[in-house]
Amino acid sequence: MELKGTSIIGFNRGSSGNRTLTGFNPASGVALAPTFYAASAAEVDLAAKLAHQAFASFSRTSGKTRAKFLREIAENIEALGDVLVQRATQETGLPEGRIQSERGRTCNQLRLFADLIEEGSWVDARIDHSDPDRKPIPKPDVRSLLRPLGPVVVFGASNFPLAFSVAGGDTASALAGGNTVIVKAHHAHPGTSELVGLAVLEAVQSCDLPEGVFSLMYGSGNEVGTALVKHPLIKAGGFTGSRSGGRALFDAAVSRPEPIPFYAEMSSVNPVVILPGAIHDRSEQIAAGLAGSVTLGAGQFCTNPGLIFLAESDESRSFVEKLGALMSSSPEQTMLTQGISTTYKQSVAGRLQHRSVESVAATPAVQQSDGCGAKSALFLTSAEEFLANQELSEEVFGPSTLVVMYTTKEELLTLLDQLEGQLTATIHANDEDMNSSAGLLAALEAKVGRLVFNGFPTGVEVCHSMVHGGPYPATSDGRSTSVGTRAIFRFTRQVCYQDFPDGVLPDELKAGNPLGIWRLVDGQISKD
Amino acid sequence: MELKGTSIIGFNRGSSGNRTLTGFNPASGVALAPTFYAASAAEVDLAAKLAHQAFASFSRTSGKTRAKFLREIAENIEALGDVLVQRATQETGLPEGRIQSERGRTCNQLRLFADLIEEGSWVDARIDHSDPDRKPIPKPDVRSLLRPLGPVVVFGASNFPLAFSVAGGDTASALAGGNTVIVKAHHAHPGTSELVGLAVLEAVQSCDLPEGVFSLMYGSGNEVGTALVKHPLIKAGGFTGSRSGGRALFDAAVSRPEPIPFYAEMSSVNPVVILPGAIHDRSEQIAAGLAGSVTLGAGQFCTNPGLIFLAESDESRSFVEKLGALMSSSPEQTMLTQGISTTYKQSVAGRLQHRSVESVAATPAVQQSDGCGAKSALFLTSAEEFLANQELSEEVFGPSTLVVMYTTKEELLTLLDQLEGQLTATIHANDEDMNSSAGLLAALEAKVGRLVFNGFPTGVEVCHSMVHGGPYPATSDGRSTSVGTRAIFRFTRQVCYQDFPDGVLPDELKAGNPLGIWRLVDGQISKD
Repeated sequence: MELKGTSIIGFNRGSSGNRTLTGFNPASGVALAPTFYAASAAEVDLAAKLAHQAFASFSRTSGKTRAKFLREIAENIEALGDVLVQRATQETGLPEGRIQSERGRTCNQLRLFADLIEEGSWVDARIDHSDPDRKPIPKPDVRSLLRPLGPVVVFGASNFPLAFSVAGGDTASALAGGNTVIVKAHHAHPGTSELVGLAVLEAVQSCDLPEGVFSLMYGSGNEVGTALVKHPLIKAGGFTGSRSGGRALFDAAVSRPEPIPFYAEMSSVNPVVILPGAIHDRSEQIAAGLAGSVTLGAGQFCTNPGLIFLAESDESRSFVEKLGALMSSSPEQTMLTQGISTTYKQSVAGRLQHRSVESVAATPAVQQSDGCGAKSALFLTSAEEFLANQELSEEVFGPSTLVVMYTTKEELLTLLDQLEGQLTATIHANDEDMNSSAGLLAALEAKVGRLVFNGFPTGVEVCHSMVHGGPYPATSDGRSTSVGTRAIFRFTRQVCYQDFPDGVLPDELKAGNPLGIWRLVDGQISKD
Repeated sequence: MELKGTSIIGFNRGSSGNRTLTGFNPASGVALAPTFYAASAAEVDLAAKLAHQAFASFSRTSGKTRAKFLREIAENIEALGDVLVQRATQETGLPEGRIQSERGRTCNQLRLFADLIEEGSWVDARIDHSDPDRKPIPKPDVRSLLRPLGPVVVFGASNFPLAFSVAGGDTASALAGGNTVIVKAHHAHPGTSELVGLAVLEAVQSCDLPEGVFSLMYGSGNEVGTALVKHPLIKAGGFTGSRSGGRALFDAAVSRPEPIPFYAEMSSVNPVVILPGAIHDRSEQIAAGLAGSVTLGAGQFCTNPGLIFLAESDESRSFVEKLGALMSSSPEQTMLTQGISTTYKQSVAGRLQHRSVESVAATPAVQQSDGCGAKSALFLTSAEEFLANQELSEEVFGPSTLVVMYTTKEELLTLLDQLEGQLTATIHANDEDMNSSAGLLAALEAKVGRLVFNGFPTGVEVCHSMVHGGPYPATSDGRSTSVGTRAIFRFTRQVCYQDFPDGVLPDELKAGNPLGIWRLVDGQISKD
């Protein structure tokens, strides 16, 4: 399939102006054809107008219709076969196996949302029947459900070229809920984006959906993304990326004349608390698991464990040595982009030079790895130094982690209390640990969206219960998740109908429950 | 009961500094004893710290415990008897009957939330069981539910001294969900606030809940409210009031280093579309209902219908005359405060002088009513003039409404399309009207939280299905409601637990379902 390099605007392709960008193979350092063209301001406006127009009808399609659409997107992505895998591998430096499994996840989550909306109960339909005889005033008939917000802008993420990009989590949940979507392609994988974008476009057309349900825009800087977020017809947004980039877009979203919801997933160090009993019982196993989790995918996961809390002891010291040995022996990996690799090396250099930090498995050689290469790094500090140096709690995006040794349980609680919001926190403990750790769970829960017990935070299960989101800065709006079926609530709002004739009501609220969904009827959950 | 005039900070009373405020009887123009004292910056900080400390344990109380607490608040409010009714009547100018029914609503909504959390299914508990044999990687056990956000600041509203103030909607939903609450008392009813605040405090103590679950702060300007919204330990806020005030607080909330959810209910003109068939069939009835709805409570309801769309016809002209006659004959009423009354008179004066607006039932005498008095006003304009003069779509807070005459269905859709977000929209129609009004419902739904059919928007039923909220500026965050049990979602976030031992899980997620709540287990809704 030949790539054109232009935006997809409704059913048409964008222009090829003079602002361009190019894919780049981080493993070889070679630029990848073709040239891609940034969308113009007029094209941003056109895409938003098409998305607005399409919303009027797309938002009123049935769950069945949208389920078919999501399944066709998944099929079209799979039909791209090796072309997609090769392009994604070239543009990201990620191994073929990882891209294949990410493609599987991407298609699975589209199908999970398809099942969800085909079944239909997710809309939280509620009915309170009228009581004309109530005193002092009659009770009206009130019915409500969740409805989509409008056109949503979704930013592709560098670290998940498929699962968090063009047809990734936010796109799937937004479309599932009946919103229209404009994706801003990530500049690091423009070809992957075009391939997936065309797969979505084909599904829009084969399902006879209106032009504007989906568009894909390229941009070479912040201009296109910011213009989309600020466009009056855009009603929400989703982003995964850097803290500075996410905050800038969030600020743009909430300072509009009409502020809009904006979910920016930005920064998380994913603390791991390993209690003494766990160290005693499972030292080898935890060290191996942790080394694998820190270095997985060159440490480029949002849930990468970047902070490890250990109680000061000989066993803990020995654990740190084991972990250091494992991490030192892990092979150099290729990072996603030159920018990410450079930032990683600078961050590691900062820790190497930090007077309060001991290097366990990081040598200056880390900085010298070629091009986009990255070697893993393990650092050690004390609770006292950690509390005194705010910069040590900041995320280092890459295969690096920091062990903090504390001395008392109170000190551990103090350490946890001053952490910022996180996507995850992990506890390793045996029964005795748990019995003697009052307050630990509450302290961790206050900071995170997901708590992991005796496991590792990388690997996010796509299911109904998953929460991948957390208090700021993990997510700019930490009330919801970007993974799993709960994510459909991101792009919805509550709407109610008072005293409406049955024929005009949405099917979800009609008498006789024609869709057979679970509803809350006069306070009782039922399928009646 | 003698009022002290000081803030309630945890279990103690605040200081009496030199920044003071005083209640005022808008009907008589007389100041009401005692003097009230603004909280100091140190007191704001103390209240936030107490709320934060109390959250650790209050957020882990059972639904049953919190249900008892909410019911005790309701009982304590009722036990205040006539003392409360008299003080509220004096401070607001609202008739005794209205205060009594508002007290009933306030206590009913506390009890509705008590029932909701005692039953417990509201937390949306979800369980996905593990599958250790899954390939290529084992499936973890993942369980999730809704958890409270933390300390919430609630701003008392001038127009609902009970139902949207100290123990009003936001306080009830925040406490029900397990959040702690600091109320910023509205300066126009400080005595009512103290009485209700003491009723809440008494319930905190009699239920053996920790100090800091509830505080009540006075402020004489914006200082105390802004300081609360900006305090790092505050995690969310709710406000009902003016557009400028709400937006300023929203801006403060989202520009914090850690932005927080902020629900400001600000401005709504609540359009009413009366289609030709309805005018033909029920002209008298609609005119009477509308006159009642516009003038109810001196027009000081968020859902006051401020905009009426009518198709140009002789019947419509005659309807407007009827409505004008009814409104002219409605008696002068007392508004809540001098400030509100002055703003109303200025707004009416602006419309009287507006070159594009015809006065049907407003004379310059409206401006001359004494003190806080307000007479009703009815204005008329054309679609063309309405579209050309943006200021005509702005809210006039008080017993005033504007009829806009349109000529074609397309023009009506254009009018609706350019409206801002609204709490409600109302349609009056017969069957024939509905059959010939394609697109009307979709156009209205896109703008509002609640659609009313052949009724009137004032009067908000407190029930499971109610949605009282809507796209900006009706609410700064239009995804949710401030009335009804759905409001509990305002102050919650999703949290999940991966591979946790059963004994450590929240009861809602434990094996065997000890609370007997509805849960989503492996994708199926059940009580198993």
